[in-house]
Amino acid sequence: MTKILSGSEVAEALKQKIISEVKNLKQQGFKPVLCIVMVGKQPDSVAYVKSASKKCETMGIGCRIKTLPEDIREEELIKTIQELNEDKTINGIMIMLPLPTHISQKAVKYVISPEKDVDCLNPVNVSKVMSGEKCTFTPCTPSAVMEILKHYGIDIQGKKAVIIGRSMVVGRPLAMMLLKENATVTICHTKTVNLKEETRRADILVAAAGKPKMVKKDMVDDGAIVIDVGINFDEDGKMCGDVDFDGVRQVTSMITPVPKGVGSVTSTVLMKHVIEACKQQNNLA
Amino acid sequence: MTKILSGSEVAEALKQKIISEVKNLKQQGFKPVLCIVMVGKQPDSVAYVKSASKKCETMGIGCRIKTLPEDIREEELIKTIQELNEDKTINGIMIMLPLPTHISQKAVKYVISPEKDVDCLNPVNVSKVMSGEKCTFTPCTPSAVMEILKHYGIDIQGKKAVIIGRSMVVGRPLAMMLLKENATVTICHTKTVNLKEETRRADILVAAAGKPKMVKKDMVDDGAIVIDVGINFDEDGKMCGDVDFDGVRQVTSMITPVPKGVGSVTSTVLMKHVIEACKQQNNLA
Repeated sequence: MTKILSGSEVAEALKQKIISEVKNLKQQGFKPVLCIVMVGKQPDSVAYVKSASKKCETMGIGCRIKTLPEDIREEELIKTIQELNEDKTINGIMIMLPLPTHISQKAVKYVISPEKDVDCLNPVNVSKVMSGEKCTFTPCTPSAVMEILKHYGIDIQGKKAVIIGRSMVVGRPLAMMLLKENATVTICHTKTVNLKEETRRADILVAAAGKPKMVKKDMVDDGAIVIDVGINFDEDGKMCGDVDFDGVRQVTSMITPVPKGVGSVTSTVLMKHVIEACKQQNNLA
Repeated sequence: MTKILSGSEVAEALKQKIISEVKNLKQQGFKPVLCIVMVGKQPDSVAYVKSASKKCETMGIGCRIKTLPEDIREEELIKTIQELNEDKTINGIMIMLPLPTHISQKAVKYVISPEKDVDCLNPVNVSKVMSGEKCTFTPCTPSAVMEILKHYGIDIQGKKAVIIGRSMVVGRPLAMMLLKENATVTICHTKTVNLKEETRRADILVAAAGKPKMVKKDMVDDGAIVIDVGINFDEDGKMCGDVDFDGVRQVTSMITPVPKGVGSVTSTVLMKHVIEACKQQNNLA
């Protein structure tokens, strides 16, 4: 029997912890606040911001949204971020990506204060993820994967973890986080020659390729644990992951669905980081 | 016939390029200068500094050595590094590690200017290595491995690269550098369950475990390329690598020896970084 690893369940458990922490903080006179910076009005970003804002509300976290014009000058954006860095009423800053092409993401990531960088853009936090140092603000999506593994008590040490995808938002940082937990980690990508040979070796297989249903049943070993980071839409416009769920679930021991998988946990991890930021900034950590 | 990948040959070729670059820079009125900071007098560090200083001389690079007392206060060391950051007659700064235990390596790495950080300590440079962005100052040892592969025209794309060791000076950054060149990368370590199974899959096997002669013939696939990063001493006090060279060379297509392998290239890479630093600081890059 394949166990479905429910992202919603993990998110709910995390949410309860956060609500209790927020209560605790408020009793001490602190209110955690997230500020989301959105340049322009890309539909994806607008939808995300709306959902995150609602999530903040249900957890008692303050949420400010800074909407900036699509054609804002880079210097102006940088100035805005610097003001948010200084603003003591804000604990966490999240900048919606991608930014318009006339703005360098590089410029922005060096400006955001490492102490408020809840989505891990700043090199100071990125380098901590790489070295395996204690890091409060790991990137939200790979952290969501780790939360799921932890919630279900999945042992990572000594396991063969295979990741498909090498992006800076998922593959690379996740490789470092699994390595820290003592997995033997393999990173695959579009230039991997025999992908099936690699994925079939996995005890824990993470699909973060961004290709709808690319992981088929014959690519997965019997009893493997499969984590699907993909969020795509199939030919019928239905949301699906990078994994062919119906086929693959026949061979796995555990698998995350899409929707209600990793994606459900990501924004809750963001809220957890806002709480941590609030605690650290007030020397409560 | 196994080909011996000679680090000395690679270093010599690199040296000739550097000498020609130095000549070029001097004609334009610039003299590249490295400053090595040594706290205390650990025998290993003293030997390294002596050898690096001699190397600088043969390449026409200036070398200043800043020897500081073993019991220097952290604030004093930081002040010294800040002065070196400001000193326009110095292009590259290398801090000998490990530092005495009363000094936090963390404190120091944030202080060294990313523009002079020729051995890649500062998080700004570390995060570039992780993301695969263009980075002038990659860590010297993994860069030496890459120089050897490049020098001998070894194709990396699509190859299975297996690394034994996950340190921040070799394993982790090398994984990212091989990934950038499109290898499928596996990182193994002391908690890897069946190491032989992993290493036998490698097209390119890199040993960076720090254990004398631990890689035996039966751990290497026929025709694999083996790069030995280890510098150890065997029971007779003879220098050896992490690879049992005499056994392993019987099955490999190419192999680096120890000595005259990776270690021979490392300090030459450092010199290359000093040249790059000099060029960038004078807008000649």
